[in-house]
Amino acid sequence: MTPHDIPAYMDHLGVAARAAATAMASAGTRVKNDALSALARLLREAGEPLAAANAKDIAAAEAAGLAAPMVDRLRLTPKVIATVAEGCEQLAAMPDPVGEITGVKRRPTGISVGQMRVPLGVFGMIYESRPNVTIEAASLAIKSGNACILRGGSEAIHSNLALWQLVQRALSEAGLPPEAVQLVETTDRAAVGRLIAMPEYVDVIIPRGGKGLIARISAEAKVPVIKHLDGNCHVYVDAEVDIAQALVVTDNAKTQKYSPCNAAESLLVHAASAPAFLPQIGAIFAAKGVEMRCDSAAKAILAAVPGARLADATEADWAEEYLAPIVSVKVVQGLDEAIAHINRYGSHHTDAILTTNHPNAMRFLREVDSASVMVNASTRFADGFEYGLGAEIGISTDKFHARGPVGLEGLTSMKWVVLGQGEIRG
Amino acid sequence: MTPHDIPAYMDHLGVAARAAATAMASAGTRVKNDALSALARLLREAGEPLAAANAKDIAAAEAAGLAAPMVDRLRLTPKVIATVAEGCEQLAAMPDPVGEITGVKRRPTGISVGQMRVPLGVFGMIYESRPNVTIEAASLAIKSGNACILRGGSEAIHSNLALWQLVQRALSEAGLPPEAVQLVETTDRAAVGRLIAMPEYVDVIIPRGGKGLIARISAEAKVPVIKHLDGNCHVYVDAEVDIAQALVVTDNAKTQKYSPCNAAESLLVHAASAPAFLPQIGAIFAAKGVEMRCDSAAKAILAAVPGARLADATEADWAEEYLAPIVSVKVVQGLDEAIAHINRYGSHHTDAILTTNHPNAMRFLREVDSASVMVNASTRFADGFEYGLGAEIGISTDKFHARGPVGLEGLTSMKWVVLGQGEIRG
Repeated sequence: MTPHDIPAYMDHLGVAARAAATAMASAGTRVKNDALSALARLLREAGEPLAAANAKDIAAAEAAGLAAPMVDRLRLTPKVIATVAEGCEQLAAMPDPVGEITGVKRRPTGISVGQMRVPLGVFGMIYESRPNVTIEAASLAIKSGNACILRGGSEAIHSNLALWQLVQRALSEAGLPPEAVQLVETTDRAAVGRLIAMPEYVDVIIPRGGKGLIARISAEAKVPVIKHLDGNCHVYVDAEVDIAQALVVTDNAKTQKYSPCNAAESLLVHAASAPAFLPQIGAIFAAKGVEMRCDSAAKAILAAVPGARLADATEADWAEEYLAPIVSVKVVQGLDEAIAHINRYGSHHTDAILTTNHPNAMRFLREVDSASVMVNASTRFADGFEYGLGAEIGISTDKFHARGPVGLEGLTSMKWVVLGQGEIRG
Repeated sequence: MTPHDIPAYMDHLGVAARAAATAMASAGTRVKNDALSALARLLREAGEPLAAANAKDIAAAEAAGLAAPMVDRLRLTPKVIATVAEGCEQLAAMPDPVGEITGVKRRPTGISVGQMRVPLGVFGMIYESRPNVTIEAASLAIKSGNACILRGGSEAIHSNLALWQLVQRALSEAGLPPEAVQLVETTDRAAVGRLIAMPEYVDVIIPRGGKGLIARISAEAKVPVIKHLDGNCHVYVDAEVDIAQALVVTDNAKTQKYSPCNAAESLLVHAASAPAFLPQIGAIFAAKGVEMRCDSAAKAILAAVPGARLADATEADWAEEYLAPIVSVKVVQGLDEAIAHINRYGSHHTDAILTTNHPNAMRFLREVDSASVMVNASTRFADGFEYGLGAEIGISTDKFHARGPVGLEGLTSMKWVVLGQGEIRG
């Protein structure tokens, strides 16, 4: 089917995905693992044809004057290919989440009631630039027993098509339907509009990309969306704290990388720790060129730090995700104020308390309303791989269904299973 | 605040609910159980004022010419009051789902990662007629640590207001914010439109009522909706089966009550069992006046049953939820056909296989894409109380988040918890 008539083309993909989803849901663990192993092998053997397809995208991007970091994201270097191939093998080695029956309890009526983990069905994935996401999404779909419809960025279309061919070969080799992973072959934007509005074929949409793209998709989708818009992550340094440890963790959370959504954007410091802690972290930030946007109390202390780049924080700063060498800094009077501030200005992504006080640690974990809450660890750990999920299809800051890094389990749901011996309701 | 300016009034409820939700999320188990015990006591002691409020609704309903069964649904009889009071005490006796940390694993980096169960926040409940739902929803909110905004039917407004006063007193007695449970005090329909479209205050909507109401709410809601539209439940009688047991279970699934969503609406019988099973179940259905809408093979067998009310099934019959003494009947050639038929025409609510063949039972459990799948048990068991959830806020036929009967756990979500000793990301 040619993708000229977009609604008909998308319906065609939807029907094929729904049929493939049924086959995937009942596929055995070994068959799914065989497909993943085959995909790893095919990626490693891909060589020239894949490189040529990727070169086309790179040339087009350079001709179009894309910035160098954007062009770099497109590159399927031998290292990138090795990493995604390894990812497929890691998924193959993981336990199969599907089919597991848990929590079976005998009821007074005689029936036994439990829950079975099953695939969601069909997910749609919408992403930009990096072509390796094609393999990540495909491999998670295969292992979780779902079908998927992938819509990559137009700038990576040749790379994505070449990678998709490998996925289809791997599925066929293992005896699975190649339609389990479909790629939208047109770069027409109308295809996205249709993909997010066909609940009869697609159970959930996972967008990855800029905030604008994700906000638009969330507003217009007719199916659930697994997403996050912002990562305004906080580090709160409590009154009782190991200052040396707090310096290392705060530095890592802010400066190890500026662009990820789990990097810290806001630093809250208890008034009792501020005189000891702020000048030292201020010196570290000053040395790395990190601008500090401060409330008056923090500024008064940090003013003494040589070379510190200080500014007055505005109301907007407390809610800002900088993704840059900028941090907002505030002195708070206690845990209550810290928690209230985070719940008000945060983005429910990831927040950490640095403390030696156990009750405070437990209150922070319970009362901060974020997808990931941490004690004495860097916010940069909020990641599917770091959490042991094997891989990550996305991160959710919503509370419904999956929260935080979403791996295989987030692509499944639990249905009720009742085992009887002829019981009836009285 | 008077409910004349609906948007302002609903915003006011929303702000109060959000603040109460924070308090409820950190409330201790004993305090929440105290509120539930107080509510049970206040319900039992309510006496004349509650009876008078209920009498007002009954009189208005009778004056308006409501049908007798509809009027009966409004009645807060001593038995209804005793049942809801008992329900509160049963919830108090259940384990607190909130705060539990599970699945903690040490990662190679040194951090420990697990998940903590926390309340969703604020739910909105929209329901018709039965005022006891006010207490069911309030008590589930209290135990699960959520706040809720309740919108009952206009025909039960006086009963609901009286019950809500008891809820607020119980909350206050236990030291919890009375705003944790709010009732929309106006019967203006614009309030519903606003309630389902304020994601800043309401995390999820749970509608209970007619299919039309639920479809409209689902289409217009700007937040997730926990709902089911249809219960087109199937019983499939396999080739290898205990016929005597299958008769008892099939009869119970269809005729124990016709109106619940978990009653069977469609009977599939393997061709090998049909000659022995169909005449006997046909005789039972004939004796109870159940009309059978058949495919040609079933009709040929059932034609011999004296007094059987038979009709030819149309395509529409396979998808129909009758909620009446009518059943569709089809002879199938095997398990594959049965599963395909259920997944095509069913409503993903509850379906049962009656079989002595273990591999077939397991395939049915895995491959039928419904919220509840059963082996050798009546579909009528698909119910929160029967499943041991303590109570049920609703039933979901969607796959996202909670599936099937939704109890306390369905009103919670899992956040990630990371416990470290100063670990940083390398």
